[in-house]
Amino acid sequence: MNQRLQERDTIVSISPDVVLGRGVVIHRFVNLYGCKIGDETKIGTFVEIQKGVEVGARCKISSHSFLCEGVTLEEGVFIGHGVTFINDRYPKALGEENLLKGDDDWLCEKTIVRRGASIGSGSTIMCGVEIGTEAIVGAGSCVLSDVRSGAVVVGNPAREMVK
Amino acid sequence: MNQRLQERDTIVSISPDVVLGRGVVIHRFVNLYGCKIGDETKIGTFVEIQKGVEVGARCKISSHSFLCEGVTLEEGVFIGHGVTFINDRYPKALGEENLLKGDDDWLCEKTIVRRGASIGSGSTIMCGVEIGTEAIVGAGSCVLSDVRSGAVVVGNPAREMVK
Amino acid sequence: MNQRLQERDTIVSISPDVVLGRGVVIHRFVNLYGCKIGDETKIGTFVEIQKGVEVGARCKISSHSFLCEGVTLEEGVFIGHGVTFINDRYPKALGEENLLKGDDDWLCEKTIVRRGASIGSGSTIMCGVEIGTEAIVGAGSCVLSDVRSGAVVVGNPAREMVK
Repeated sequence: MNQRLQERDTIVSISPDVVLGRGVVIHRFVNLYGCKIGDETKIGTFVEIQKGVEVGARCKISSHSFLCEGVTLEEGVFIGHGVTFINDRYPKALGEENLLKGDDDWLCEKTIVRRGASIGSGSTIMCGVEIGTEAIVGAGSCVLSDVRSGAVVVGNPAREMVK
Repeated sequence: MNQRLQERDTIVSISPDVVLGRGVVIHRFVNLYGCKIGDETKIGTFVEIQKGVEVGARCKISSHSFLCEGVTLEEGVFIGHGVTFINDRYPKALGEENLLKGDDDWLCEKTIVRRGASIGSGSTIMCGVEIGTEAIVGAGSCVLSDVRSGAVVVGNPAREMVK
Repeated sequence: MNQRLQERDTIVSISPDVVLGRGVVIHRFVNLYGCKIGDETKIGTFVEIQKGVEVGARCKISSHSFLCEGVTLEEGVFIGHGVTFINDRYPKALGEENLLKGDDDWLCEKTIVRRGASIGSGSTIMCGVEIGTEAIVGAGSCVLSDVRSGAVVVGNPAREMVK
């Protein structure tokens, strides 16, 4: 039988270089390093946020999501559960001479999610895109190109819904 | 080098309000709170189950899956790996006056998965749906509407397969 | 407020039967058992690798991915974030007489990913497939059949891109 754990402090990893705003809420089993989190933002269970990521104030990042280097969230962005961002368009394990690629041996393409946008659960966001203000990405979508402000996109690949 | 951890008890979080049936098996890095888990059900690694969820007896919930408030699984349901349920059709981080939305500031739409159904790995299940008895959701599907008992659905959006 | 955790050793689970090559790098919140990991391979946060899996040298397995029994990665394979493998084509929680299915009550279909292939983030890989040497699976894909060496496949279901 499993013990009922009371100590949340033992199961969150926040590296010393993380900058946390006021009133940030962080759930269990979270891994943060080198990132900046805005005031009152909430971060769910099993979330990883990498170095260089900037998350605005009052965002909500739901469980099982991954924010990689190169991602910026403006204020009030909603990230659903199991959302995956990308920063390397042509990922490979090996580089020249079949050596493991190093930390500098690739191009980091930036992604920005503008104020008040919502990204539905289970979505994958290709790198190099801008998701506009108050835009909505439907659940389970795969976003390959920019999303206009206020637009609703769905599907794989994600396309704008006709209203 | 990483130490080889022997103590599973240190890495499972089960809040005191969880009701566990007889013979429930819970793997490592699991976060449960406010839910009810039926007899002999198995819960995999990196699973989160929220308050109000009811899981029947002899279900299998595989790693990296997320069951949110509003979800009910009847007896003998199989949930694959990386399956995401949803309870908020129009999620937003901010409500009126650009304040962070509160716990009561949204509508929780219920989802029910009937006895003996199987949901394939990597699927996303929109809220407000019923997945019928012994139905099968193929891997990688995005389910947006009800699934009939015994039906097989696949794709994004998931559609019934012609047999 | 969360404590800033310094001890990574407390939050990795590697069972005693895991065979680790030289220079393997394992990040936080990882669950490994009964598998073999080749030299210099890197394993990200929230990854689970099951018994019987063989991972070659110099692979990169990114966060939130799941490698199940029956999966083999050759040398230099890149697995993106949130990638899910499958080994049971017809998963069910219950077997005969409505008893929970046992460990031997199913057919494990093998999957092999050949040298230098890359599997994009958010992809789901059906069991029984071979992904060829240097092949690329685009992000968010659902792979249901073999991928030829050097091919690029995308979508759900994944299809070969016309160049």
